[in-house]
Amino acid sequence: MKKSLGAKTYVFPTPVFIVGTYDEDGKPNAMNAAWGGVCGSDPPALCISVRPSRKTMDNIKATGAFTVNIPGQEHVKEADYFGIASGHKEDKFKKTGLTPVKGDKVNAPVIDEFPLNIQCEVMGMMDVGEHIHIVGKIIDTMVDEEKTDENGVPDIKKIKPMTYNTVTNDYEAIGNTVAKAFRSGLEIK
Amino acid sequence: MKKSLGAKTYVFPTPVFIVGTYDEDGKPNAMNAAWGGVCGSDPPALCISVRPSRKTMDNIKATGAFTVNIPGQEHVKEADYFGIASGHKEDKFKKTGLTPVKGDKVNAPVIDEFPLNIQCEVMGMMDVGEHIHIVGKIIDTMVDEEKTDENGVPDIKKIKPMTYNTVTNDYEAIGNTVAKAFRSGLEIK
Repeated sequence: MKKSLGAKTYVFPTPVFIVGTYDEDGKPNAMNAAWGGVCGSDPPALCISVRPSRKTMDNIKATGAFTVNIPGQEHVKEADYFGIASGHKEDKFKKTGLTPVKGDKVNAPVIDEFPLNIQCEVMGMMDVGEHIHIVGKIIDTMVDEEKTDENGVPDIKKIKPMTYNTVTNDYEAIGNTVAKAFRSGLEIK
Repeated sequence: MKKSLGAKTYVFPTPVFIVGTYDEDGKPNAMNAAWGGVCGSDPPALCISVRPSRKTMDNIKATGAFTVNIPGQEHVKEADYFGIASGHKEDKFKKTGLTPVKGDKVNAPVIDEFPLNIQCEVMGMMDVGEHIHIVGKIIDTMVDEEKTDENGVPDIKKIKPMTYNTVTNDYEAIGNTVAKAFRSGLEIK
């Protein structure tokens, strides 16, 4: 039996994107964005939604660039901190001790300790109610070499990324493989 | 040591959204979208990216509505099938045996057997290269009553949603809770 819950963002999974930006003086900031995802293949692109009041929004408007950094479970505290502190008031990199490294492709900082880093240039923006929805063209994707598999690509089992549970506000692990895509459905096809 | 992989959509996690639509004659279709996520809180909104060649795109243009249906792991084959078959050529509901139920809030079908169903009205569209990025205002979220927790909200442990691994094309399970959001970071703050 289905039950209506009203207009809720009860969607699984949502990501733990740590968005890195510089302000106009080159000071780094980072925020935690659960609203976002991949939004294009050619060019590769991703999207994030940010409230206009955020320091990240000022920074993106100033530089036209941002990074998305995917933390492993070992950095859950830092990831959460990036979501509860304001870049208007705190130096989040100083407080976490994490290292912002200038992106070699865009004017935004990469978080060195996080295993997967995606450098983006702003392609477009769109108002979505209280958020500004930002589409970023992916210019480069970087991975820690020790977090790759035998093919040299990012290994989800080594990276141990998380998903944010929008219902209970938990960070959840991503676990075992269920099935192969483009293969398990062939039985029906 | 970081390694550059070029402009890749190697992002974790991406969802397994089964997008339900009707064509202008009321015939239901569904596709599997990994490109998408939540994109707004007020109003609650989510986004998906769809190629213009898809039957889903024709349908969304005709009706201005769609649903996002979240399958549990027990429906991984059906979910994958929705991604590898074309609505231009096959009756995907007939083939899977799944049940399209007309949404009570929007002109799009809800997949009855899937535990979480989100009814959306199109708010806006944006070209992102080869994809059209579609923002949907969430009108209602429905959940199977037996997949709720003690507070009556969707229980991720009972729903057993999946994430699509864009690197290896695997469906991955979402597993154990790592930490509480807005709490684990307080230690740093």
